[in-house]
Amino acid sequence: MKLASLNRGGRDGTLAVVSRDLTRCQTVPEIARTLQAALDDWPRCAPRLTEVACHLEAAHARHAEPFDPATCLAPLPRAYQWLDGSAYLNHVRLARQARGAALPPDLEAIPLMYQGGSDDLAGPCRPLRADPAWGLDFEAELAVITGDVPAGMDADGGLDAVRLLMLANDVSLRHLVPAELARGFGFVQSKPSTSFSPVAITPDELGDAWQGGRVHREMRVDLNGKPFARVPAGDGMHCPFGALIAHAARTRRLGAGTIVGSGTVSLAQNGLEASRVERGGQGCCCLLERRLLEQIELGHAKTPYLAEGDRVRIEMLDGLGLSLFGAIDQGVVNGNGRGNPRPSAKPKT
Amino acid sequence: MKLASLNRGGRDGTLAVVSRDLTRCQTVPEIARTLQAALDDWPRCAPRLTEVACHLEAAHARHAEPFDPATCLAPLPRAYQWLDGSAYLNHVRLARQARGAALPPDLEAIPLMYQGGSDDLAGPCRPLRADPAWGLDFEAELAVITGDVPAGMDADGGLDAVRLLMLANDVSLRHLVPAELARGFGFVQSKPSTSFSPVAITPDELGDAWQGGRVHREMRVDLNGKPFARVPAGDGMHCPFGALIAHAARTRRLGAGTIVGSGTVSLAQNGLEASRVERGGQGCCCLLERRLLEQIELGHAKTPYLAEGDRVRIEMLDGLGLSLFGAIDQGVVNGNGRGNPRPSAKPKT
Repeated sequence: MKLASLNRGGRDGTLAVVSRDLTRCQTVPEIARTLQAALDDWPRCAPRLTEVACHLEAAHARHAEPFDPATCLAPLPRAYQWLDGSAYLNHVRLARQARGAALPPDLEAIPLMYQGGSDDLAGPCRPLRADPAWGLDFEAELAVITGDVPAGMDADGGLDAVRLLMLANDVSLRHLVPAELARGFGFVQSKPSTSFSPVAITPDELGDAWQGGRVHREMRVDLNGKPFARVPAGDGMHCPFGALIAHAARTRRLGAGTIVGSGTVSLAQNGLEASRVERGGQGCCCLLERRLLEQIELGHAKTPYLAEGDRVRIEMLDGLGLSLFGAIDQGVVNGNGRGNPRPSAKPKT
Repeated sequence: MKLASLNRGGRDGTLAVVSRDLTRCQTVPEIARTLQAALDDWPRCAPRLTEVACHLEAAHARHAEPFDPATCLAPLPRAYQWLDGSAYLNHVRLARQARGAALPPDLEAIPLMYQGGSDDLAGPCRPLRADPAWGLDFEAELAVITGDVPAGMDADGGLDAVRLLMLANDVSLRHLVPAELARGFGFVQSKPSTSFSPVAITPDELGDAWQGGRVHREMRVDLNGKPFARVPAGDGMHCPFGALIAHAARTRRLGAGTIVGSGTVSLAQNGLEASRVERGGQGCCCLLERRLLEQIELGHAKTPYLAEGDRVRIEMLDGLGLSLFGAIDQGVVNGNGRGNPRPSAKPKT
């Protein structure tokens, strides 16, 4: 089934079941008012939500209404935890190369993962805002929402805990990244609100494309209406979702509604040459990778970071060419969300 | 006023107003069922909660019941965001010295801050669990809960957004820290659930001790029933709470219920000599600082990290010697929360 949070009824929105073709939906206040409430009580809610989904498909749902992704918040408009992995090692290698940083020596054995801000997750059509000096970039990713995961859970148990999948745009402010990572404490200012697809879907919606915690479908990114990336999302994922969840749960339990991200989807073949040759030049799911490619080929990066007026669209299709998650489709506006760009607040001492 | 979340009524507990002397409380379902609900609608809820607090003080609350900190969850048992600063520079200097890491060159100008896990915040009496090999340590801190903070808010506005204060035990697994920080992505495995005091209090409860975003009261830590630390919490805080909040909000808004921590309380005087001489040897609010002191004085650290049977108590008193927040009082049990300690899950590739 497919679930969305409509922008009505408060900060967490209103849970709706959405038809497979993303044309109709139905709110389900008698089952759960919000997606978090459904996740908190999944064994009770899931069968009832599935029943509504069946009625929607059979087109005899009594209270169906048209579905409009523009009225969606993120499936979880705020979450208790958002952990983003870096499971595509080609992206990690290129990102570190771009900023001249060394690779973690245990990169292949231990997943890279950071804790992201989850108090304000963006819906699929929320405008992106940034000070032009910050280097606004997108990162097309997959993400899962888990049920409760006990501390010490292994990768198989982690995989069993996957309740839903989404697409994510892990918005990054590239010029703020190096200074934050150099301090070792992760991303705070350099990763503003992450955006999510209109709907979250249960793994069974993926059919055979869901294999061992990887999604074998193509990640599609369009920039300003033109194809920018067409990258298979399954092949390059070194560490599948079950192992990412196990990594997060090594020393603590994870609460229902925890979001775990894949990191930027990237090619299975390592290195820039592959990104250039493969997929007809459409091998990069963020601007950083594309710019690094240009720098090596041309001596300078010619693709600019996002600016006012740009538009990014992130989507994934099923075998019939239908949208699985709906599209993240965000325009870029100027400013930092509070009017004019302003310098960092300095501490008063 | 003082607020607590009693362990009944679901994952977020049940909001209760607590008497100033921490002996009585009253649930307030007619105002807000949970603390998060009250924070989401603070302008409407706060005056009504204050009225209940007044009735409790006057001892004519009709539905008061005895207050028992052991029945408390964390004031926010799960939160949408937990950002922990490192505002006491002496702690930062000592912690880096202990692991032989360089200091950030801009340490005095830009706050250090990491994003913590907030899906499972521990109540004041939840046992601490850890694999003995992990190096379990406590960190006594102050923390605030904010209202909504727009992106780009300055330090004065950040200070105005402080709704409540708490004590925190930022539990740390010392042996897992260096490897995580070396990767730059912050703490995921090395900071399990943070624990919080039984009650969260409004700033006015501190009277004159709340000055410019600092709390001028003594942080008190007892280890196994004996005084371990008695450190003034105001003097050593280089970056006050308003500036910490402004730092967090530089590129994004913060949602109501965001928790911002001070970092481990540490002495105003820099260096180990001060920790040794000042406060009669009770100048360290975590084991790491104490162990570093011993290492330099004795050539080895003799105070072990926490082990099964240990007990940590963290508290702060008002001018009359009454507990402001109630005590965090946690015993240590063996294991990683799922039975026997087990090695890290390795990714399947």
